[in-house]
Amino acid sequence: MTVLKPAQFLMIPGPTPVPPAILEILARHPIGHRSTEMSAIIGDVTQQLKELGETEADALILTGSGTMAMEAAIINTISPGDKVLCLVNGVFGARWVKVAQAYGAQVVTLESVPGTAIDVDQLANHLAQDKDKSIKVVIVTHNETSTGVMNDIRRIAHLVKKHGALSIVDAVTSFAAVRIPIDEWMVDVLVTGSQKALMLPPGLSIVFFGQRAWAAQATAKTHKFYLDLARCKKSSDANTTPFTPNVSFICALQKSLQLIKEEGISKVQNRHLTMKTMLRAGLRSMGLKLLVDDENASPTITAILPPGKITVAEIRKALKEDYNIIVADGQEDLQGKIFRIGHMGYVFERDILMTIACLDAILKKMGHANLSELSISAALQAGLKTNEQSVK
Amino acid sequence: MTVLKPAQFLMIPGPTPVPPAILEILARHPIGHRSTEMSAIIGDVTQQLKELGETEADALILTGSGTMAMEAAIINTISPGDKVLCLVNGVFGARWVKVAQAYGAQVVTLESVPGTAIDVDQLANHLAQDKDKSIKVVIVTHNETSTGVMNDIRRIAHLVKKHGALSIVDAVTSFAAVRIPIDEWMVDVLVTGSQKALMLPPGLSIVFFGQRAWAAQATAKTHKFYLDLARCKKSSDANTTPFTPNVSFICALQKSLQLIKEEGISKVQNRHLTMKTMLRAGLRSMGLKLLVDDENASPTITAILPPGKITVAEIRKALKEDYNIIVADGQEDLQGKIFRIGHMGYVFERDILMTIACLDAILKKMGHANLSELSISAALQAGLKTNEQSVK
Repeated sequence: MTVLKPAQFLMIPGPTPVPPAILEILARHPIGHRSTEMSAIIGDVTQQLKELGETEADALILTGSGTMAMEAAIINTISPGDKVLCLVNGVFGARWVKVAQAYGAQVVTLESVPGTAIDVDQLANHLAQDKDKSIKVVIVTHNETSTGVMNDIRRIAHLVKKHGALSIVDAVTSFAAVRIPIDEWMVDVLVTGSQKALMLPPGLSIVFFGQRAWAAQATAKTHKFYLDLARCKKSSDANTTPFTPNVSFICALQKSLQLIKEEGISKVQNRHLTMKTMLRAGLRSMGLKLLVDDENASPTITAILPPGKITVAEIRKALKEDYNIIVADGQEDLQGKIFRIGHMGYVFERDILMTIACLDAILKKMGHANLSELSISAALQAGLKTNEQSVK
Repeated sequence: MTVLKPAQFLMIPGPTPVPPAILEILARHPIGHRSTEMSAIIGDVTQQLKELGETEADALILTGSGTMAMEAAIINTISPGDKVLCLVNGVFGARWVKVAQAYGAQVVTLESVPGTAIDVDQLANHLAQDKDKSIKVVIVTHNETSTGVMNDIRRIAHLVKKHGALSIVDAVTSFAAVRIPIDEWMVDVLVTGSQKALMLPPGLSIVFFGQRAWAAQATAKTHKFYLDLARCKKSSDANTTPFTPNVSFICALQKSLQLIKEEGISKVQNRHLTMKTMLRAGLRSMGLKLLVDDENASPTITAILPPGKITVAEIRKALKEDYNIIVADGQEDLQGKIFRIGHMGYVFERDILMTIACLDAILKKMGHANLSELSISAALQAGLKTNEQSVK
């Protein structure tokens, strides 16, 4: 006997749910990558991405994952031996240290405890001490996926610009969910991936590359070919790509950008804010502790400490078995210490309420004292307040 | 008024037609990339790929295009300054020269005129002259997509092995369509892509990496991170990937490998052989000249010279406008001089007959003297003969 189950629902920080209209496009037959139809789509997608990022920088579409796009950002701006400052407050921040080191950069780090944000004043001090301006590039993760902390990119990028260095921002789990006016914030390079707030499966990534970055690119001596962004730009300017791209995903991305435009960019961003406040209020009313304080909490990922003697593994297993909802474990040092709920892209208040209710139910079953009526009410009230504030 | 047209049909050397059963999988919601379900799929796909390549080498799945996978093959075997011999008889052979040079290799080439195969005796002489065994790696394209020539990998890889160098084979447009017993032929590294005979859209690629290649990898000093194959192997051994992969495409690849197994690998390969002979016979009976002689002609791509004063552009335009069939132009020096018909993957005798008949029709309209009855009969007879020989 096979038991019928509801479809698996991903509340992890990517892959995230994909809208039916996008899945339908993925099921279409690929068109020729050198066709006029494809060029029109590449041209449109590029333009839409620039609008979404509020930027005049080039928006280059790469076939590969977000890590690959971050590697592209790094190797197109540095030469072996260059000094790179990595701002690290979690697993992804630490990954960029490894990438920069793998390409021969001289890496220095400024670290914050995972779960807290990068201390911008400390960064200012650090840069002030770099009197000979030896730091060429500063790499920072906007939304640290491993903890659900948002770093203050606006202030960080301003400081970096003032210092005369280049900023590379990993916005993989924030772009489209959060407003990032790339030019106004003076970000030089910004990277994102398809499988987060852009609502596609994983497989495509985007690098925004600005004027000052191109100046660095012209002299950067790191070996590269597939990820040579000058080559990508030359093709992009002609509405094509240097190598066969993921045609299906670029067509799907066009649909995604259209859906975002139709909902309205600011509404998409308010929806993420509302989901965050609803989820946090609901979780707290169950007596759960959150890893990140309200000020620095991400609108797309929430990290939660398991209550009492209940383990993360038990919570994840029960949510999967009883309700087919998938949430993520902590990573590396935080494995088993937190669980993470992703709420980005094609996720709605309905899904937040469902997750709170199901989490409530399984915790009750495990003997955690709580009342579901309270958690749902708390979530609804928090949502109401956030919506009111957004309207103002 | 909109005119209803038949669906676009790709007779180009990739992207190629995709079976409905695979499109249906691409329309499914992505599953979590760290789930046990995904690990089971990655494990199965890896095993199936090794069976198809008749090899004990590692089969590593990369999210990116075929060019990226070739770059991975090169940067994981060489250090800057290493001597690399590139065998070049077309655009793709020439591309690997650029990749190797971009990573600081000292590249020497052995060239054949596009449309002809690499001269294996000349290679033997070339290697014999390398008395201090300074050539570390030999790069060769199995099926040169720009001309439709198959190089004799079996003999080439044997020579390279005997010389003590490593062989890297670009099998992007041959793998699965043609038998390539990787271990028996002593190939060290072999690369392929998803959008050819594996019947997927573009976006995924595979690197087979053997024992001798791993020995080179351990000492190769080229900088790398995303394409560090040692990192990929470590993950692959645990049925996962180091970075978020294209989950949807890996699930689709599992289906593709299953379809190939169900048809029977040797039947798939015979089908490609039959399509080649049918197409060539049909084209010749129309009085068309083929770029490549029978001995070296590819079973997956056929290059044709336009007849008389009719141009390649006119032929491509008419096939598209009248029948919505897409064929490819020549590349670089051969642009406008040949057109190319791809016949790999989810393509059948029916499609070959259709293409011959439609090409016949548009050429007749353009004033080229030919008889369609003859070309179809010629194709059918050639097909019959090939099938008989395959059965033996």
